[in-house]
Amino acid sequence: MSSSSISLPSLEGSVASRSPSPSSTGPDHYFEGAEKLLEIWFHVEPTSKSLRVIPYNELTELLDLAHCQIISSRSNEKVDAYVLSESSCFVSDSRFILKTCGTTRLLDTVGRLLDLAREYCGLNSVLNVYYSRKNFARPELQIGPHGSFEHEIARLDDHFEDGAAYCMGSLKQDRWYLYTLHSPVAPQRNVDHTLELLMTDLPEEVCALFTKEVCADGPECTKLAGIDKLVPPGTIIDETLFDPVGYSMNGLLPHSDHYVTIHVTPEPEFSYVSFETNQDLWDLYKQANKVLDCFKPKKFQLTLFASDESPGAKASQQHLWERDIPGYRRTDLQFIRLAHDTLVYAQFKQKVNID
Amino acid sequence: MSSSSISLPSLEGSVASRSPSPSSTGPDHYFEGAEKLLEIWFHVEPTSKSLRVIPYNELTELLDLAHCQIISSRSNEKVDAYVLSESSCFVSDSRFILKTCGTTRLLDTVGRLLDLAREYCGLNSVLNVYYSRKNFARPELQIGPHGSFEHEIARLDDHFEDGAAYCMGSLKQDRWYLYTLHSPVAPQRNVDHTLELLMTDLPEEVCALFTKEVCADGPECTKLAGIDKLVPPGTIIDETLFDPVGYSMNGLLPHSDHYVTIHVTPEPEFSYVSFETNQDLWDLYKQANKVLDCFKPKKFQLTLFASDESPGAKASQQHLWERDIPGYRRTDLQFIRLAHDTLVYAQFKQKVNID
Repeated sequence: MSSSSISLPSLEGSVASRSPSPSSTGPDHYFEGAEKLLEIWFHVEPTSKSLRVIPYNELTELLDLAHCQIISSRSNEKVDAYVLSESSCFVSDSRFILKTCGTTRLLDTVGRLLDLAREYCGLNSVLNVYYSRKNFARPELQIGPHGSFEHEIARLDDHFEDGAAYCMGSLKQDRWYLYTLHSPVAPQRNVDHTLELLMTDLPEEVCALFTKEVCADGPECTKLAGIDKLVPPGTIIDETLFDPVGYSMNGLLPHSDHYVTIHVTPEPEFSYVSFETNQDLWDLYKQANKVLDCFKPKKFQLTLFASDESPGAKASQQHLWERDIPGYRRTDLQFIRLAHDTLVYAQFKQKVNID
Repeated sequence: MSSSSISLPSLEGSVASRSPSPSSTGPDHYFEGAEKLLEIWFHVEPTSKSLRVIPYNELTELLDLAHCQIISSRSNEKVDAYVLSESSCFVSDSRFILKTCGTTRLLDTVGRLLDLAREYCGLNSVLNVYYSRKNFARPELQIGPHGSFEHEIARLDDHFEDGAAYCMGSLKQDRWYLYTLHSPVAPQRNVDHTLELLMTDLPEEVCALFTKEVCADGPECTKLAGIDKLVPPGTIIDETLFDPVGYSMNGLLPHSDHYVTIHVTPEPEFSYVSFETNQDLWDLYKQANKVLDCFKPKKFQLTLFASDESPGAKASQQHLWERDIPGYRRTDLQFIRLAHDTLVYAQFKQKVNID
């Protein structure tokens, strides 16, 4: 198994903390755990290079535009994974994933990212774009276009043509927004799928684990919370326990560009956990159940993208359509057919036990 | 076959016209063909009566609230069908359907309708509510809550608790809004399905048929346009050709509460046709193709509700998922699982022939 820490300067080893929100102390303290998530696939040409050749300093400057910093990084043969002050970044040969929470300005990076791909890698055209997020609990705290999905659409349209934009879930409760673009002349088809669980309202005893009061560091937290059991043996884990609270984890599966990433906002007043993976598991439905068993949220949203060539994910989507998740009541279920993918969106609420 | 015209006063025989829009003549002339559609199912109790006992004068006063009038009516054993100055109304024992176009104020009727059902029929509780519409081309011309779906949601929430509200289709193109409510303790399950086709951008030669210039009256129009071929033999057809343009048709299938309703806004600048049916056809997919062959729209939206007990509609939904519609490119496809129904929403655009 190849595992190398990238040798350029980082914040690793220093005391990590999430960037302060406007009210980071006192009764008004609030942190928006829900992430903005951007995934871009580039069209590989005979003369193009890997996105991984983009220099580290360019990457840090790119992330500066979003107002977040690299805390640590790990790599395997296929992908460079970064834990950020707010969430994560994954760079593989032709896929760039940036996930940022809080009041970060993710969409401010898009133009520069496309320039970097062109300048350093000769990656001149985009195959697929996915920009998604849960509705924010406090949209008025967001900066720039992130205050509303309509403004985010307009900003994305500045960079991409013919994107489609959807709202999944009832407009009257938690919902999930997606902007997506598929190049009409895409010569390549990616065998790919992504499972995301966006969980809210965690029990206090689960929240407590992700604090400096209970755990000394990230690795202790990973073990105590049972997160090490959520990934296959041999996974390279890179985790950070923030001071005073909060947890981020990237996992790289051996010899592949498969990753797991988990981010915990443990304040009980606005607790939030995201779990995301593109693991090649036959039954992502079982994986989802394991994650729920770990975090025990009162509510969660589930999204599962499956490309047409991804039979395991298709089977899991079918499961979701036909079966319930034990202990939960499904309050929304939607399918959407995209150009080369199917997406399932579901929302669940914990059943109330009446004894 | 029982067919009786309701004997109370109506506008039947007078020259029918759609209510004038603020700019009904001249270059600014515009008419919003896209209908607001409300369908309410009431919970039948041992002592309750049919909705059809509501007196005619109460019905006309109810429709006054929406700013539309009854033009003509037909009945069979199961249902009373009304052609309105703007679209249609169907009243059966426990189901009330009101569909109104232009700048009508459909949601102003809801409170009074619930009162009438309670007072005259002892129908005290609602089983299901569906309120839906296409996005308006000119929302700024709409009155009251109809100017935005958010305001419509708020108005519906004044009358119903725990409704869910969805936007289907890309926010960047034509889309379709749905507010729906399912009583959590519904003791009855309806075997039901509804197919709707909302068609825009019709060829000029199709538009021309639905004008007083080409046709003398509704029946001629029905025949010339081939609409009589879209319904089974024995269907009671009630149609109106408006002056100078526009067409509305209700069809009642023999001995059942199955209906077909078609409304045409034929002005080429903003042409629009809606087709709606709850016909008990095994293959609604074939029915959709016949309708498209008749109106040849450049774009259309299709919605198909199927209750869990409606195998024909389920099979048609599966068809839509797996197959294309000849001559059209699918630009959106979404499924949504409701409490006792599945809904498929799709949008299609005509393929361009390159010779």
